[in-house]
Amino acid sequence: MAKVKVHVFLKPGVLDVQGKAVEGALHGLGWADVSNARVGKMIEFDIGDGVEDKAAEVKRMCETLLANTVIESYRIEVE
Amino acid sequence: MAKVKVHVFLKPGVLDVQGKAVEGALHGLGWADVSNARVGKMIEFDIGDGVEDKAAEVKRMCETLLANTVIESYRIEVE
Repeated sequence: MAKVKVHVFLKPGVLDVQGKAVEGALHGLGWADVSNARVGKMIEFDIGDGVEDKAAEVKRMCETLLANTVIESYRIEVE
Repeated sequence: MAKVKVHVFLKPGVLDVQGKAVEGALHGLGWADVSNARVGKMIEFDIGDGVEDKAAEVKRMCETLLANTVIESYRIEVE
């Protein structure tokens, strides 16, 4: 069994509404020294040993389901 | 300027609806060997050098805004 972590973030240039909201709220709460806030998804799951090339399979999962590759980029970690 | 990463996840025992949805969809697409799927938030931002104890400040940001500490736990990375 391997642990998989997938980081999904909006591509640069795509307006990150959640990021802007977090940044604005932090400024409002007094943390003025915060900038470039971005919010992304982190998906973790276990993948069985029956899967041979785990990284390739997870890449296919990302392309198929986990990331909207038009506006999102993803990074895969297999432990 | 330091780069801050905050991983926010649901605490064990709290039903992870998104995780269940991802797991079910992956099974439906033929990846039966996937289990324990969890979906969390990853918040990244830059914090200025004016902030002395960055880790302590970010912890306060998490307790105040970034995480719902009743049902979520968080992990902080300051680079």
